[in-house]
Amino acid sequence: MKIAIPIFDRMTALDCIGPYEVLSRIPGAEVTFIASETGPKRADTNMLSVSADATLAELPNPDVILIGGGYGTRSLMKDPEMLDWVRTAHETSQWTTSVCTGALVLGAAGILDGLEATTYWTELETLRQFGATPVSERFVEQGKVITAAGVSAGIDMALMLAARMTAPEVAQAIQLGIEYDPQPPFDTGSPAKAPQEIQDLVRAAQRAEEQAAA
Amino acid sequence: MKIAIPIFDRMTALDCIGPYEVLSRIPGAEVTFIASETGPKRADTNMLSVSADATLAELPNPDVILIGGGYGTRSLMKDPEMLDWVRTAHETSQWTTSVCTGALVLGAAGILDGLEATTYWTELETLRQFGATPVSERFVEQGKVITAAGVSAGIDMALMLAARMTAPEVAQAIQLGIEYDPQPPFDTGSPAKAPQEIQDLVRAAQRAEEQAAA
Repeated sequence: MKIAIPIFDRMTALDCIGPYEVLSRIPGAEVTFIASETGPKRADTNMLSVSADATLAELPNPDVILIGGGYGTRSLMKDPEMLDWVRTAHETSQWTTSVCTGALVLGAAGILDGLEATTYWTELETLRQFGATPVSERFVEQGKVITAAGVSAGIDMALMLAARMTAPEVAQAIQLGIEYDPQPPFDTGSPAKAPQEIQDLVRAAQRAEEQAAA
Repeated sequence: MKIAIPIFDRMTALDCIGPYEVLSRIPGAEVTFIASETGPKRADTNMLSVSADATLAELPNPDVILIGGGYGTRSLMKDPEMLDWVRTAHETSQWTTSVCTGALVLGAAGILDGLEATTYWTELETLRQFGATPVSERFVEQGKVITAAGVSAGIDMALMLAARMTAPEVAQAIQLGIEYDPQPPFDTGSPAKAPQEIQDLVRAAQRAEEQAAA
């Protein structure tokens, strides 16, 4: 079972590392971080580098595709090599998945046309430009295409996917293996739960990051 | 606010990347991944490399220390350079923290003597050899020393720590920023909740990994 996770500069690291930590524990699964060239990619914070161990060309037909988010997706959406890879890999994949704004890359590749999908909460409406219907769910399953909400949602999606790929007991053991018994000290993890002033803080930070990148 | 995360071969990546994703979003905070030498360190799965951007010697006095777990901690517990760094950094730190079996490194450095502490659920009793009293909690705060349970517990701890370091509103905005509204598809994330056969599966995988490393 080959699982490919493309990485790129300005990725949000947890989008990929959360699901990696789950999926790599499936017996027999092999997770590979890939990019157009091997070597380190820098996260959106500029405080972390994760390495690609193989090129896109070396892994054209993975069983599972997982595309994470971050501001770097905005370049990926216009990157012919990445979009070609995604389209080709999707033809033979068992599962094609995204976390956060990774959904925008699936959308740009034409994969979300006519489907329900989700993404990071501030980018839900952007999905419409790809012919998708945005849904505010933790993750949305449409046949073999699964899109997850922002960042940490990839952990929940990956546990569900592990159960589908193997058996519920395997996913349950992985959940215990990563001691995933969440006890967040607050309850502001979605726009439906966070007060307006907290949402405003996040949007202001997002605008500052966009401006810094422009 | 300087936050140092030592990394090492055979680390469990999510132990560090979860808290990194939270703490790096604190305004003005700078997270640095450090090691005895800069460059890539390989995770316990052998499927992922994360790079150290600075050496231990370059960051002797961080405000926050966070030590993650994984089988690589067993070597760190006998590594004089790492233990010296931890002891020295702890003298001036505002917070000294661990996730998962990172607590064993704090213990080996003498920092947990006389304290209550937690760690990965299969290693709780090991804490006694460092003079600590094991506690089955998501995280345990003892003055400036905070130990978290396994792997994903670091995310919860980091949110609490972000609130302590700044204000609850900042931590709440970070929680929304990473859309941390956990909805695990199962409820087996702690040994108190997982049936015996699920616990047995995790312990068997753990033994296999220990044997592979021996």
